[in-house]
Amino acid sequence: MLNDIRAPLEQICQRVDGTFAVTVMGLDGLPVDTVHHEHVPEGTDVASLLVEYSNLISQVKRSAQMFAAGGLEELSIRSENLTTIIRTINKDYFLAIALGNHGNFGKGRYMLRVNAPKLAEIL
Amino acid sequence: MLNDIRAPLEQICQRVDGTFAVTVMGLDGLPVDTVHHEHVPEGTDVASLLVEYSNLISQVKRSAQMFAAGGLEELSIRSENLTTIIRTINKDYFLAIALGNHGNFGKGRYMLRVNAPKLAEIL
Repeated sequence: MLNDIRAPLEQICQRVDGTFAVTVMGLDGLPVDTVHHEHVPEGTDVASLLVEYSNLISQVKRSAQMFAAGGLEELSIRSENLTTIIRTINKDYFLAIALGNHGNFGKGRYMLRVNAPKLAEIL
Repeated sequence: MLNDIRAPLEQICQRVDGTFAVTVMGLDGLPVDTVHHEHVPEGTDVASLLVEYSNLISQVKRSAQMFAAGGLEELSIRSENLTTIIRTINKDYFLAIALGNHGNFGKGRYMLRVNAPKLAEIL
């Protein structure tokens, strides 16, 4: 199973300029698989940041459902040094990319949107 | 002051297809000014959703700073019926747009990026 997950992650890294890492993670913050790509700016801890962000997802989901905005599809967070895009795979897992702000945000969103359904078939 | 704030909000509504509302809000969840535009899907409560999301911002800011991702610039949340883009104005205020998923996401991001510095001069 891990091989099937790894292939789309590697493809995303290769196709999206400026990618630091791509990961499949549980909503509990446990990573299923991660592929690291470009060198991350010194001091930036992408892995810990993603775990931290995973805590937010449940909260955002709850708020969105409460006010009839519907199920959460995508969450993106742009900070000074790093942009993170998170895409829901199913109720337990999400796919996330961390990229530099020189990276291609639109391509990142596109690649997650295309690959999330493929991963949903596996997970 | 409120007139100076209202003008950019109206401009964003007019320029971004599919906009439900544009707002300037404090990080405490208190809206400074809001312009409503297209009709919102029944049952969706954009105003309450934005207050709810404002609670997230402080959390995201803390996480991003903790792991050296830098200051928060933009947060976007796409749900089934609604996309929200939030842009930091300064440490106390943010600018947000709620738009339908038929709306122009890229144009929305662009208009917030351009207008946030103008609002920062006023607030």
